[in-house]
Amino acid sequence: VPELNPEFSAELKKAITEGKALFGDQISEDYAHDELALAMAFPDVLVIAACADEIVDTVRLCNKYRVPLVVRGSGTGLCGAAVASGGLLLDLSGMNRVLELDEDNLCIRVEPGIMLMELTEYVESRGLFYPPDPGEKTATIAGNISTNAGGMRAVKYGVTRDYVRELEVVTGSGDRLTLGGRVAKNSSGYSLKDLIVGSEGTLAVILSATLKLLPLPTVIVSLLLPYDDIQSAIETVPKLMRSKCAPTAVEFFERSTLLYAEDYLGKKFPDSKSAAYLLLTFDGQSESEVEREYTEAAELCIDAGALDAFIIATEERRDAVWSARGAFLEAIKASAGGMDECDVVVPRAKVADFIVFSHEIERKLGIRLSSFGHAGDGNLHIYLCRDKMPDTEYREKLAEAFRLLYEKARELRGKVSGEHGIGLAKKDWFMLQEPAVSVGIMRSIKSAFDKNYILNPGKIFD
Amino acid sequence: VPELNPEFSAELKKAITEGKALFGDQISEDYAHDELALAMAFPDVLVIAACADEIVDTVRLCNKYRVPLVVRGSGTGLCGAAVASGGLLLDLSGMNRVLELDEDNLCIRVEPGIMLMELTEYVESRGLFYPPDPGEKTATIAGNISTNAGGMRAVKYGVTRDYVRELEVVTGSGDRLTLGGRVAKNSSGYSLKDLIVGSEGTLAVILSATLKLLPLPTVIVSLLLPYDDIQSAIETVPKLMRSKCAPTAVEFFERSTLLYAEDYLGKKFPDSKSAAYLLLTFDGQSESEVEREYTEAAELCIDAGALDAFIIATEERRDAVWSARGAFLEAIKASAGGMDECDVVVPRAKVADFIVFSHEIERKLGIRLSSFGHAGDGNLHIYLCRDKMPDTEYREKLAEAFRLLYEKARELRGKVSGEHGIGLAKKDWFMLQEPAVSVGIMRSIKSAFDKNYILNPGKIFD
Repeated sequence: VPELNPEFSAELKKAITEGKALFGDQISEDYAHDELALAMAFPDVLVIAACADEIVDTVRLCNKYRVPLVVRGSGTGLCGAAVASGGLLLDLSGMNRVLELDEDNLCIRVEPGIMLMELTEYVESRGLFYPPDPGEKTATIAGNISTNAGGMRAVKYGVTRDYVRELEVVTGSGDRLTLGGRVAKNSSGYSLKDLIVGSEGTLAVILSATLKLLPLPTVIVSLLLPYDDIQSAIETVPKLMRSKCAPTAVEFFERSTLLYAEDYLGKKFPDSKSAAYLLLTFDGQSESEVEREYTEAAELCIDAGALDAFIIATEERRDAVWSARGAFLEAIKASAGGMDECDVVVPRAKVADFIVFSHEIERKLGIRLSSFGHAGDGNLHIYLCRDKMPDTEYREKLAEAFRLLYEKARELRGKVSGEHGIGLAKKDWFMLQEPAVSVGIMRSIKSAFDKNYILNPGKIFD
Repeated sequence: VPELNPEFSAELKKAITEGKALFGDQISEDYAHDELALAMAFPDVLVIAACADEIVDTVRLCNKYRVPLVVRGSGTGLCGAAVASGGLLLDLSGMNRVLELDEDNLCIRVEPGIMLMELTEYVESRGLFYPPDPGEKTATIAGNISTNAGGMRAVKYGVTRDYVRELEVVTGSGDRLTLGGRVAKNSSGYSLKDLIVGSEGTLAVILSATLKLLPLPTVIVSLLLPYDDIQSAIETVPKLMRSKCAPTAVEFFERSTLLYAEDYLGKKFPDSKSAAYLLLTFDGQSESEVEREYTEAAELCIDAGALDAFIIATEERRDAVWSARGAFLEAIKASAGGMDECDVVVPRAKVADFIVFSHEIERKLGIRLSSFGHAGDGNLHIYLCRDKMPDTEYREKLAEAFRLLYEKARELRGKVSGEHGIGLAKKDWFMLQEPAVSVGIMRSIKSAFDKNYILNPGKIFD
């Protein structure tokens, strides 16, 4: 690790609030990993930013002295995108204020470090709605934007990208820019805003984000549908999407995953006898409309092989069901003694094929693959569990299982990541599947925003 | 005009179906202008492409011989983006087939030259729905994608960008690429697909597009709301958007515009006594739900100053109303003896300010400004009419009016174009308002896709 340039350190200390630029041993281990904790790596210096100007100053100093800069929110990522090996780690989690609620234009401007749960609470208490709903509610909004997080309501409402109206950023080259606008249509030059969304901190640092809001739906009902097998469950989904039911969320899970969650939460799920489940949600502004939707959906599912249809309308039951769904990742993690993940996305009609294939891998390689996911949008979350395997064996099986999974995803015309991003962990798989010409164009775009390659170097592509 | 390299012409003739590569005088005047016909300019050679391979061959030859290439669909653009001054004009309007309807994944793959009306008819006859609804139904889908066209239903359903899942393209450098995928979520590297959307043929040529579909709404009702003045009409809009009514379209127009349309169509509108109108649409899958929405909306509008609320539920009345709305552009054009247009977008809550300002310009400069537009999304269409002005006077007034309009749009934090694009006609205004750093990044992106600057040179920016 090269030493930090003392002039850089001195200038940085001058620019940043006292006590908020930390060096070497002052940096806590919490900053050395993300949620999946696959890579442990320390930055040379940590800056806890207090305001946009401090971010801009930090980026400009890093650019001047060629110090690699990694941005971090809550550290809930799963692919190592917010882990810094040397250089500077910029923590934005303290910048979590709402800057402006613009009810006339139905949008909100927030600082990058606001947590999804804080944003949601703020807008919902005012009768407004921010639809994207990724599972990890403590993630920051800039983290969600940087991975174009999707979440459960993507089926009806779309992904984070669809709600980003305007971004204030500072590019890696140190230029402060406002991209997009507080407008619902735009045909004025290339959409640079859409490049920043999903770029995992490699092009620019987000200073503030203006997000589109909707009126809050007042009626929400879920439907839990047990099936005898995962294939019948998932084969219902294209029929549902083709119907007039307009589900908000279409999740699937298998019994094994559910049992981990029951164990982990110490709570019983309304039903855990069946092999596979679909969990649907419907929302709207009127009881009668939502009732029409879930009634039609229940009939359709029962025709397609569902064993029953449990209506989850009370807040208590809804909490029980969705808290179990929300705990899947943690529950699998607690059961696994080490794990790695795959969040491929495949065309919706291919989800069943992919799950069946993952069970074949389980049997063939003797490694546990726990999965659940977003059946409505083709995004699967598959966790490869270490259990009690020795290290070398686990690594070998992991590598082989990943190879097979990503190959299958490609064969089904899927993509390496649906919503967690590429980061470090999936870079090799991404590089393998993405044509060299596309990667070359991405590299040129990277230089256009960050001429000295200081922002999150080595992430997404080499 | 430099002569075409004879080797280029010879190779081109070999690559293209006989009779589909036309030179010099063989090229009809129809190809020398777009819908607004501001610029008259001829290409040296016209290629009418029959298939994707011919497009790829043409682009590669142009790249090899450094021949500028402009792509053209139906020629319904308003900003000169599809007009070629010398070089090669590539007409894709003959490539108008549906390549695949994938009902399981609710998407459709089409050739670039299919007209919006052909696409709409194809999917609607199968109970499916392509929501974007730009006014010009004879535009091609690749044209819509290239300008990120918005249309009337953007309020509820979003713009063209939101429905583009996958694009097969050939870059200006001659590389064939598939961008995006048949997936609903994607977090796998920079979104190059979103760069192509809205890039007006300057980065790549679209070979095919896969578009997201929805189930077709079965109930559609419109509501016509007369007001005493345009301000009260438009001030209703933020209230509507904040309500639980979820309108599909929120259009506004003034009496003068309506009278041109009545004249032009030779048909009476249900009501033309009032100074200003809002025209709303509601759609859904059940009568009762749509009824709830338009009833609430009507009450809200009457509380906010609407003089009446006409329910337009029969197909006959709906056709009368929407054919008038659809004829506004043609009607103004017929009345104007020459015109130019401005399609700024401003934050929704600022539309009234902008319209009032445009009337001030009318009075101050003595030039007629006929406007209508999408009140729900802040996108205005303002036509500056020549009427009987001498040429020099018209040009001077036009320049001054544009200067004032674009300055006002910037002051209100709007954008130069909401959906028609920049092309040639708005380049100066775009360059004036876009920060030099952004334009610099766009130039680098241009080189990354089109290293010899052959695609649509001189459009959007210099």
